Amino acid sequence: MFTVIAERINMTRKSVNREVEKRNGEYIAKEARRQTEAGATHIDINAGGNPSTEVENMRWLAETVSEATELPLVFDSPNPEALRAGLEVCNRPGTIINSITNESERVKAVLPLVKEFNTSVIALAMDDGGMPEDLAGRIQVIDALIALFDKSGVGLERVHFDPLVRPAGTNPGQIADLLEAVRYLVGKHPEAHVAMGLSNVSFGLPKRGLLNRAFLAMLIATGADGAIIDPTDVEMMKTLLASRAVLGVDQYGIEYITAERSGSL
Amino acid sequence: MFTVIAERINMTRKSVNREVEKRNGEYIAKEARRQTEAGATHIDINAGGNPSTEVENMRWLAETVSEATELPLVFDSPNPEALRAGLEVCNRPGTIINSITNESERVKAVLPLVKEFNTSVIALAMDDGGMPEDLAGRIQVIDALIALFDKSGVGLERVHFDPLVRPAGTNPGQIADLLEAVRYLVGKHPEAHVAMGLSNVSFGLPKRGLLNRAFLAMLIATGADGAIIDPTDVEMMKTLLASRAVLGVDQYGIEYITAERSGSL
Repeated sequence: MFTVIAERINMTRKSVNREVEKRNGEYIAKEARRQTEAGATHIDINAGGNPSTEVENMRWLAETVSEATELPLVFDSPNPEALRAGLEVCNRPGTIINSITNESERVKAVLPLVKEFNTSVIALAMDDGGMPEDLAGRIQVIDALIALFDKSGVGLERVHFDPLVRPAGTNPGQIADLLEAVRYLVGKHPEAHVAMGLSNVSFGLPKRGLLNRAFLAMLIATGADGAIIDPTDVEMMKTLLASRAVLGVDQYGIEYITAERSGSL
Repeated sequence: MFTVIAERINMTRKSVNREVEKRNGEYIAKEARRQTEAGATHIDINAGGNPSTEVENMRWLAETVSEATELPLVFDSPNPEALRAGLEVCNRPGTIINSITNESERVKAVLPLVKEFNTSVIALAMDDGGMPEDLAGRIQVIDALIALFDKSGVGLERVHFDPLVRPAGTNPGQIADLLEAVRYLVGKHPEAHVAMGLSNVSFGLPKRGLLNRAFLAMLIATGADGAIIDPTDVEMMKTLLASRAVLGVDQYGIEYITAERSGSL
């Protein structure tokens, strides 16, 4: 199964911010339902924007979204209080904390929550030195994170790695490195997951959807088993289905053919 | 540069067959020009269908196409007489013989032409045992072909390997093996090229273009630097441009941005 983390309920988006501040529950519920119906496996909730109200907003969003869908939620914040607020409202099987890094402050704040609530977690490949610049740096951070999870008793089947995508338009060659890092990770630790916010790849370039879709196909071929995307982006979901059929992860194209018969292609 | 071998002038296609038999030069010239304008780097000519007239048809097609375009041609036949007929008409720099295999009869028939006319060649990963079933078999045939070229003084920069695509719908997992074989080849022999007829991947499945495009993105990420495709398939060409921009083979997305400005995306 491919993990589709639906990214639309994010308060850094202007419309979502406005409707959350108005406590427009129907608007948020509708976003949750749309994403669920479009094929999401998880609904991400980001209450960021205003630090002074983030905890309150996360609590309200968790309540609102969990009433609208039965999917597990992904609590998306660097703030441990906001994460805890969300987790206390809803901690279904499959719940993900988004995210941890190997920065020492972040580890101290987030790792205890992963253990206390027994959740999965998205691990960003960065540490106190920042985002690694090259392949060796990426692999070093990934290895350090794996050592951290091992030591803490967090099985890698609970971890979704995000090697952090830089824009292809300004960082030529970074994506080749990133794919190599994914190959390294899934080759060495097949129980670990890979899920990243991939749209950053097209930042600053035209026709972003085209680039995002090509990148998704490459990621799936390299072993990624999840992504943080907008499931209501029909073309993206078609590329997801097609990629899995090509690779035979979707054996004999059964899911692909089923999607075609239901009119989704 | 990506090698785009344009596949439309193929007498196994009914319309092309009919117009060649009628000696409709304008029809063929138009196909050649359309493919050239759409971004082909090579025009494939396949005069197959009727063995008794193939040599004559190949000669006429080579004359007709070489008058319509300045691109190098790709002579596509298992028949050495047909290949020779084409090569005698037109042997521009970049000309490719399509194809050789490691079957002993085929080697004996085709390798001398590659040497005599100093052409490039497409090498299909098969031998007297047929098409290999698994990754180890594919690598074995590729290695044997490389040894053959080495021994014969044909530099690998003249060889475009085609690891032979089976339909994903009936052979789950074959594409993962094929991508692994491509990785092996380009990792070990960066001077070698990879170009395959990729549309077989979607045989028997619906919405074939979707599958072909996802596969093209995967191939490019894996190191393929060419493909046998229909360059007038606009969506396919967009995926080609997008994939190269994502990977930074097209550095900073310059070609991609140029294509966008000219309205090609």
